[in-house]
Amino acid sequence: MSFLVLIALGALLLWLPISSHGGLAFSEALFTACSAVTVTGLVVVDTGSALTLFGQIVVLVLIHLGGLGLMTFAALTVMALGVRFGLRGQHLVREAMNQTSPGDMLTLVRQVALLAFTLEALGTVLMAVVWVPEMGFWEGLWFSFFHAVSAFNNAGFGLRADSLSAWAGHPLINLVITALFIVGGLGFTVLMDLRRHRRFSALNLHSKLTLSGTAILALGAWLLIMLFEWQNPHTLGSLPTGERPWAAWFTAVTPRTAGFNTVDTAGLIVPSTLLIILLMFIGAGSNSTASGIKVSTFMVILLATRSFLLGRPQPSAFRRTVALDVVFRANSVVVLSLMMVLLGTFLLVVFEPRLQLLDLVFEGFSAFGTVGLSRGITGELSLPGQMVLMVLMFTGRIGPLALAFSLARPRRRRVRYVEELVQVG
Amino acid sequence: MSFLVLIALGALLLWLPISSHGGLAFSEALFTACSAVTVTGLVVVDTGSALTLFGQIVVLVLIHLGGLGLMTFAALTVMALGVRFGLRGQHLVREAMNQTSPGDMLTLVRQVALLAFTLEALGTVLMAVVWVPEMGFWEGLWFSFFHAVSAFNNAGFGLRADSLSAWAGHPLINLVITALFIVGGLGFTVLMDLRRHRRFSALNLHSKLTLSGTAILALGAWLLIMLFEWQNPHTLGSLPTGERPWAAWFTAVTPRTAGFNTVDTAGLIVPSTLLIILLMFIGAGSNSTASGIKVSTFMVILLATRSFLLGRPQPSAFRRTVALDVVFRANSVVVLSLMMVLLGTFLLVVFEPRLQLLDLVFEGFSAFGTVGLSRGITGELSLPGQMVLMVLMFTGRIGPLALAFSLARPRRRRVRYVEELVQVG
Ligand SMILES: [K+]
Ligand SMILES: [K+]
Repeated sequence: MSFLVLIALGALLLWLPISSHGGLAFSEALFTACSAVTVTGLVVVDTGSALTLFGQIVVLVLIHLGGLGLMTFAALTVMALGVRFGLRGQHLVREAMNQTSPGDMLTLVRQVALLAFTLEALGTVLMAVVWVPEMGFWEGLWFSFFHAVSAFNNAGFGLRADSLSAWAGHPLINLVITALFIVGGLGFTVLMDLRRHRRFSALNLHSKLTLSGTAILALGAWLLIMLFEWQNPHTLGSLPTGERPWAAWFTAVTPRTAGFNTVDTAGLIVPSTLLIILLMFIGAGSNSTASGIKVSTFMVILLATRSFLLGRPQPSAFRRTVALDVVFRANSVVVLSLMMVLLGTFLLVVFEPRLQLLDLVFEGFSAFGTVGLSRGITGELSLPGQMVLMVLMFTGRIGPLALAFSLARPRRRRVRYVEELVQVG
Repeated sequence: MSFLVLIALGALLLWLPISSHGGLAFSEALFTACSAVTVTGLVVVDTGSALTLFGQIVVLVLIHLGGLGLMTFAALTVMALGVRFGLRGQHLVREAMNQTSPGDMLTLVRQVALLAFTLEALGTVLMAVVWVPEMGFWEGLWFSFFHAVSAFNNAGFGLRADSLSAWAGHPLINLVITALFIVGGLGFTVLMDLRRHRRFSALNLHSKLTLSGTAILALGAWLLIMLFEWQNPHTLGSLPTGERPWAAWFTAVTPRTAGFNTVDTAGLIVPSTLLIILLMFIGAGSNSTASGIKVSTFMVILLATRSFLLGRPQPSAFRRTVALDVVFRANSVVVLSLMMVLLGTFLLVVFEPRLQLLDLVFEGFSAFGTVGLSRGITGELSLPGQMVLMVLMFTGRIGPLALAFSLARPRRRRVRYVEELVQVG
């Protein structure tokens, strides 16, 4: 609910003449506000050139409230789950969060906010080293601050139409931006766990799965993108050989919800595009600013498949067994998420018969995963198409969380009908 | 295992010079045998013109063994499940099958075989009324018999390169063929249940869900195909107005595993194509000759989503509650099936960079669902591409069944590690 209010308020502010050069249509302002609050980053107007400084500040505040606000909302949710999980569940959730009582809630929110501001400030200073000399003091500082906030919150909003393509081969910018959005995308439970236990072996299973999954996905995607795109003249092939690994790395990690790009997304060949669609669907960590099914869900499904193929009764990893409830919940998250994103994508295809299928599917998954990568068609969409994207961004942002919450709710057993088996598969 | 032997034997027979005009490459013979045994119907050589009568008979025998053989294998599987389900499960499975003891097994297999032959004979006679006058006695009778067997087994093999397009608007051919493959696709548990209880209200939940799901999918798809294709000059638009509903009906029900076509599949617009891909993924009834996730699985997922959105503890339909195990198993079937088909499709895209994405995705889902519809690229595939399709047909045919079997197996609880929760979604 608070999200809807925030979007409406943001849309009104962006609609004001003071926010843009020449004024926005209300639908443009609404789309921009929705994209900012859901930290997606899809745009119908160019943030850097069409919005004034005031408009850009509005976007940044919306990103912060949408991103950080969601993290604290997630904290609330998880705390609520802890209370409702029953005794055994409470113990496990508490362990997962290193929390001793719901009274620590406020402390937790403060810690999250403090961590966010610290990392954003650090990122701003590091990037200012590059951008202040290039653009002058105030301009360079604003550019650095805007991108640091946008990166840590995985918002994907940039100030240039071609995102960060000008620095495709710049080591420092690549490192700082990807570090910010990868850390921001781990999720606060993992961050808190890392704060407490510095050694990997001391972490809880959720943190281990999220961290190892993040590493596997990032490295695997890096290798595949280099393999697919090395010679492609529209993407890596246009860069000096030494810069290609940097651009491939950026392309490999940005789909997991960040949404910046350093090479032309529309220039990628089909296999890379499909890989990126999968990565966008997976997203990053639970309780982060990421949408999608989440890395931990993906890892649980991989583990369950492995244990199934090996004929083992339950999946296990890192000398811990994954509870079967978790496997079932993971499957439900995948199936419900797929139903949402496929329905939305189908409507996009029906509403936009003139646009390419691959571009529309990409756009739909990008919106649902609140990623913000685009093959360049966002601005060409009709009003119904834009509305589908807004609904996808919103449900993508809220859906999985609400779903996880609801599935964890103890079910009132008031079965009135006789239970019966149905053959499936 | 027996499937692999059957495919190898069939490939050798089709490879013989006596089977074809001018001889087949071994890979062509293997692909044809695999397609026939898995009752898919994708072809790299035209069955009607490239194969001799002997070759066509080999294909028909393979279809019958693959189709009917699978149905009896399915019977064995379900019986085995009944034994392993434990007391409560046994009761439910027995009820679902109207079986009183595993000793009735042989009777059941006989009943299935008898039903198949009866319906195939009936279909042959009805279609011969049309085709004997058109083609002469022996030619017309063979044509009728071949199509009746192919239809009831949902094999999709035809004797003309354009399948049944010549009879796109013929009421009798449309009715007989679609009736044969819809009834053949219900699955033998439903057929046996129907034989016993003639009234809908007396059927078990599995039969009710399969029948209502089949009706909903068929009517829904019929309306959507008419909506999307009515004016399309490549499909319905080329037919007289009175014939269009017939062709739309055929197009709407064939993706659920039959695989014949009366309009040009490659001429369908994108929304229809996506709808057909979904229908191919769903397939028809459990324990039928269909692959895909099955209608009952689809219905369970719809019911679970509804109960989730309404905040109800468990899905229910027709005054019966669906067991939660079933919901979880349905989700697992969907997730594992998706992983298989998406991996295969991704490999197709990598191996065939010159072909269209939509065509490849369509071909991958058609193979996995053992449907046999094609947008015309089967013959253009490279050898690696053909091998991917063969693996997809085989896993599509065997996978879900083996999966259902394995998931229903009581899990040996030999948990050595501590259980831990993981946040998903
Ligand atoms: K984003
Ligand atoms: K078929």
